[in-house]
Amino acid sequence: MSQRDNLKRLLAPRHLAFIGGRSMARALKRCAEGGFAGPMWLVNPQYDQLEGVPCVRSIAELPEGPDAVFVATNRDLTLQAVAELAAKGAGGAICYASGFAETGAEGQALQQRLLAAAGDMALLGPNCYGLLDYLHGAALWPVAHGGHIVEKGVAVLTQSGNFAYNLSMSDRSLPVAYMASVGNQAQLGVAELMDVLLDEPRVTAIGLHLEGLKNVPGFARAACKALQKGIPVIALKTGVSQIGAELALSHTSSLAGSDALYDALFDRLGVIRVSGPVSFIETLKAAACGNLPAGPSLAALACSGGDAGLIADYAERNGLPLPKLVEAQRAELAQVLPDYANIANPLDFTTAIWGDGPALEKMLDSALRTPADAALLVLDYPGEETGERPQCDLLLELYCAALKRHGKVGFIASALPELLPAHARELLHGHGVAALQGVEDGLAAWGRIAHYRQRRDALLARGEAALVPLCPQAIEDEGRLLDEWASKQALKPFGLPLPAAVLSTPGQAREAAADLGYPLVLKAVSAELPHKTEAGGVALNLRNEAALEAALFDMRESLARHAPQVKFEQVLLERMASPPLAELIVGIKREVGFGLALVLGAGGILVELLKDSRSLLLPTTDAAIRDALLGLRSAPLLSGFRGRPAVDMDKLVDAIRAVADYACEHADSLLELDVNPLLVNAEGAVAVDALVRLGDG
Amino acid sequence: MSQRDNLKRLLAPRHLAFIGGRSMARALKRCAEGGFAGPMWLVNPQYDQLEGVPCVRSIAELPEGPDAVFVATNRDLTLQAVAELAAKGAGGAICYASGFAETGAEGQALQQRLLAAAGDMALLGPNCYGLLDYLHGAALWPVAHGGHIVEKGVAVLTQSGNFAYNLSMSDRSLPVAYMASVGNQAQLGVAELMDVLLDEPRVTAIGLHLEGLKNVPGFARAACKALQKGIPVIALKTGVSQIGAELALSHTSSLAGSDALYDALFDRLGVIRVSGPVSFIETLKAAACGNLPAGPSLAALACSGGDAGLIADYAERNGLPLPKLVEAQRAELAQVLPDYANIANPLDFTTAIWGDGPALEKMLDSALRTPADAALLVLDYPGEETGERPQCDLLLELYCAALKRHGKVGFIASALPELLPAHARELLHGHGVAALQGVEDGLAAWGRIAHYRQRRDALLARGEAALVPLCPQAIEDEGRLLDEWASKQALKPFGLPLPAAVLSTPGQAREAAADLGYPLVLKAVSAELPHKTEAGGVALNLRNEAALEAALFDMRESLARHAPQVKFEQVLLERMASPPLAELIVGIKREVGFGLALVLGAGGILVELLKDSRSLLLPTTDAAIRDALLGLRSAPLLSGFRGRPAVDMDKLVDAIRAVADYACEHADSLLELDVNPLLVNAEGAVAVDALVRLGDG
Repeated sequence: MSQRDNLKRLLAPRHLAFIGGRSMARALKRCAEGGFAGPMWLVNPQYDQLEGVPCVRSIAELPEGPDAVFVATNRDLTLQAVAELAAKGAGGAICYASGFAETGAEGQALQQRLLAAAGDMALLGPNCYGLLDYLHGAALWPVAHGGHIVEKGVAVLTQSGNFAYNLSMSDRSLPVAYMASVGNQAQLGVAELMDVLLDEPRVTAIGLHLEGLKNVPGFARAACKALQKGIPVIALKTGVSQIGAELALSHTSSLAGSDALYDALFDRLGVIRVSGPVSFIETLKAAACGNLPAGPSLAALACSGGDAGLIADYAERNGLPLPKLVEAQRAELAQVLPDYANIANPLDFTTAIWGDGPALEKMLDSALRTPADAALLVLDYPGEETGERPQCDLLLELYCAALKRHGKVGFIASALPELLPAHARELLHGHGVAALQGVEDGLAAWGRIAHYRQRRDALLARGEAALVPLCPQAIEDEGRLLDEWASKQALKPFGLPLPAAVLSTPGQAREAAADLGYPLVLKAVSAELPHKTEAGGVALNLRNEAALEAALFDMRESLARHAPQVKFEQVLLERMASPPLAELIVGIKREVGFGLALVLGAGGILVELLKDSRSLLLPTTDAAIRDALLGLRSAPLLSGFRGRPAVDMDKLVDAIRAVADYACEHADSLLELDVNPLLVNAEGAVAVDALVRLGDG
Repeated sequence: MSQRDNLKRLLAPRHLAFIGGRSMARALKRCAEGGFAGPMWLVNPQYDQLEGVPCVRSIAELPEGPDAVFVATNRDLTLQAVAELAAKGAGGAICYASGFAETGAEGQALQQRLLAAAGDMALLGPNCYGLLDYLHGAALWPVAHGGHIVEKGVAVLTQSGNFAYNLSMSDRSLPVAYMASVGNQAQLGVAELMDVLLDEPRVTAIGLHLEGLKNVPGFARAACKALQKGIPVIALKTGVSQIGAELALSHTSSLAGSDALYDALFDRLGVIRVSGPVSFIETLKAAACGNLPAGPSLAALACSGGDAGLIADYAERNGLPLPKLVEAQRAELAQVLPDYANIANPLDFTTAIWGDGPALEKMLDSALRTPADAALLVLDYPGEETGERPQCDLLLELYCAALKRHGKVGFIASALPELLPAHARELLHGHGVAALQGVEDGLAAWGRIAHYRQRRDALLARGEAALVPLCPQAIEDEGRLLDEWASKQALKPFGLPLPAAVLSTPGQAREAAADLGYPLVLKAVSAELPHKTEAGGVALNLRNEAALEAALFDMRESLARHAPQVKFEQVLLERMASPPLAELIVGIKREVGFGLALVLGAGGILVELLKDSRSLLLPTTDAAIRDALLGLRSAPLLSGFRGRPAVDMDKLVDAIRAVADYACEHADSLLELDVNPLLVNAEGAVAVDALVRLGDG
């Protein structure tokens, strides 16, 4: 049986085994109490029974190979158990023990042996907290977890056992189908698990807590599958900061990479990035019911002006339009609400009709006629002692019923996270209505999910998501620099537009210039001279032969002084480009694990003022290049700024594509590439300078 | 007795009265249960007793004028009660009834009568939820509130009764000294309450939930007092969005103003702005103990790599440096921690020493020697059922003891907000250690407070906080535009540097130009011509008489075509300015309630690309102008960009101060002023164009 089939057994087990002592006996009992229906075995060589659970003395004595096994023994026994389980035909083993690759070279070797012992058996960990499977009630987990069987829900994968533990203890009613602590990812990593979890139709969204990725192409394939299926992937990725990136490297030996490349990767695949544990949970909750809104607009309701004010601000911040009420709605609402009610969207329906079922129903029917993609009610439950909770329950039920009547997607958010109690959340989730905690976090969470479907369509049309990022070998050497002429000649066959030019010698420059025509630019050419401007190796806008002569003389002097290593033997004469509408920088960076990144940025003085750049992983598409250009802060310069003409976007994209194509073709050897500047105007683009560095790869 | 003295009685009452029915009887009993020690009376004309509380039949029959009275009768009876209470010599009345100014003109008139009836008695509301005073146990509040007497705590003022109610129901252990719902602010507004609350030394911070301000100068005075006393003011101000601003206007008739002006006001006064209810509470908690850290650096601890990763990212995001551990600390920590522990700051001390008191103590002693301004421990309590809570309690106690030993300020944050239970929070607050909920919100909250003291010193040095914003009358008319020459002449006496210039006629322009010298600029001058460039009324860089002649000819033609209303009778000749290092726009905007705002922005193409401007309310100081300039995104252009010289900042500030001084001097009539561009270079600044609009004020 293939590893993938065995992983499927692990994720939909018919029988379970626990290997270890008392804590495993308790884990087994928790599964029984939680409703796991199949056979379960406890393996322990020393006892007949533990905590009332009878023990099987050895793996060999098991009646068959269990689909899922939790191995809670120490490091060395784990190795042995995994070998025996593989021999017995088990589906998958979860290895709790630590002391493997996370501890250094010796542990690394041991982990290799563990991996070999598992063979085609699925293996989660080692150094992982376990797997909670609430579709089948299989809690392969060493401690209490507080969860229960669900009909559908999200799958959470995390690199931190502690994060998983905290999540299992959270009081948020997140419907979890699966939660896995992936530990060292010796065999099963985030990518492999995602791929199989996406075949389970009861998984409504995927949540990832990452310090980094180990397998970018595999992740990209899995995330693309999620995009195609319309399953949102929500990622909390740490290591944004310098210190955080260093910690991530030492903690999980993931790819630290530049955090901006994770943004580029997530962006291309529609992965929704969140910044913390709360937004992680709330965003997953917004998606967990599975009925995603078609778009972002909202009809919003609250019982106070204070709440309505918060809704208005957060709706705008999160790109959630609030369509105005039409006159007929306003008239209807005026009949049922007091005269001081603010009849608008968001609607402050006041507490005047609090507890009045028919009035609330009329209000809801009218408000929900707003042509919006979804509805929001802000509702906070006060303490039991106030006696007001039944009125809250009434409103909540009426709201859910009205949503159903109007065929509308909806959610509830409480102003304060803790004021939406568990019974209300469960009730809402039963109705397919997301119960979000905290109006600020809730609207941010909804905003991420409400844009998902439109974003997904756009990404699928852009085509980039289906292209798996290149992942060439790392190059150890420093490589060799091509001079400007060689760099440009290398790029030219791929379609990079260049100024009319001649390579010449200082002695023959006059004749060459006469052929080329003035005004022109003179540049010294040498691979020893990467910073030629600083060394006086560039003279711009030479209008005639006299100017050329003078420039040649000055250049020879200046190079002799500032760059004595350079032999002044070759010069490049280029037609002077006309003043551009915009200057861009186009570069390629080689990044371990991510392959090659195409970096587009504003050039000229805007580089430093705007810090304006976008990265795309290669390969990419024209549509993605275009979107990246339009996403620059300086994009207005491209599209008819202050009455100037617009640039020719097609030709600009073609020029950038030439750089991308060259890079893909030379992925094994390209270390660095810079086109700076690429001058852009209404007629097209022209690469005025270029520099390529190639390794031996 | 003055209104202010009566307000002091209201906020430190010796006796209370409640006027109303059963709910007031219950409110009185809650005060008794909550520990209010003085006499309390229930006033009701119809009953001898309610809920076991004996009733006084009328206000006249009260033995004396109570310091604080909650009036829960209807609108008309409230008017009567307030008059009687004032006559009886009560300190202050809280008017719960609605139906006053918030309902329109009739209610507005009634509110005026209420105000008159109160006389010098303090009056909170009407249309307000009440006042919770947990210093004296006086809960002048219509329903259950869940709070209790505290030794010290924060004062919260809110415009939303519902927000106050939710806050009273929150499960966050915020130590509240006072909470007031200010309602219509007929007499007591945010400013008046702040002013008196700041005289109570047990108030450690002030929290404001605002839809807008009614009294900017009063608020500025109160906030300046807070700054001088070192009491942080935290503001959640809604109405950021367009819809939100409209709601605020109709809900509380506050000044909507431009939200950017609130930022300017808060910025000048060191008011800490937060974006939502959670950050409001958590930031107040970070300040509530009163022992603010001297600066932002942190020594941070967590028991997992996942948490350490989050800490690292959030510390960087919030400007909280994490000083590196020194070698001696690393060696010490290596002795007590397992070899897979990541010995760094943030420190992942792992769960290996979980529950081991002496080891934890050693670890804490070593980690807390880091020269940081404060310490952070991330700690999450799992559910009771895990049996792990006692170990959490142990760590928490050891942490607090270690902080005390090391004389360090510290706080705890849980990764998930709900995993720091009430008993732990109370215990921490008892030790003066802030208990923040949620590592992301917690570090953001700490970041706001950790910068407070340094920011306060800087603001006091800047001197702007003590200047009360001008608040001239609104001007209804459109005013009249001064032409460029008149505008410049108006500004010149205040020290605005101008190019050498002559006002002339088209016929005498040649002679005038000869005196002035070439190259020069020719401009048509007319108050009918505000957009002179578009109409062809500007000719730049004229190098000689021939060019001037041609320009005069073209200008006459162009004006006749594009601006036929303009008589081409006056021209301005100005010496052509040399190319600047930066172009700025300096403007004055008149804003209702805020007086005048000085707006500084990047000019040229950067206006649109950077949307780069800063507003300062007038009057302001040179130091504030300098900081605003340095706060521009384009500030690098001012300080030696790419090897160019730096601008003369003193002269630049002088030029801007000239505009500010002119505006202050003409505050009653100035509608609008624009200096665009102000060209800036190493020698100084020069105003190339200027435009003033004055009203009849």
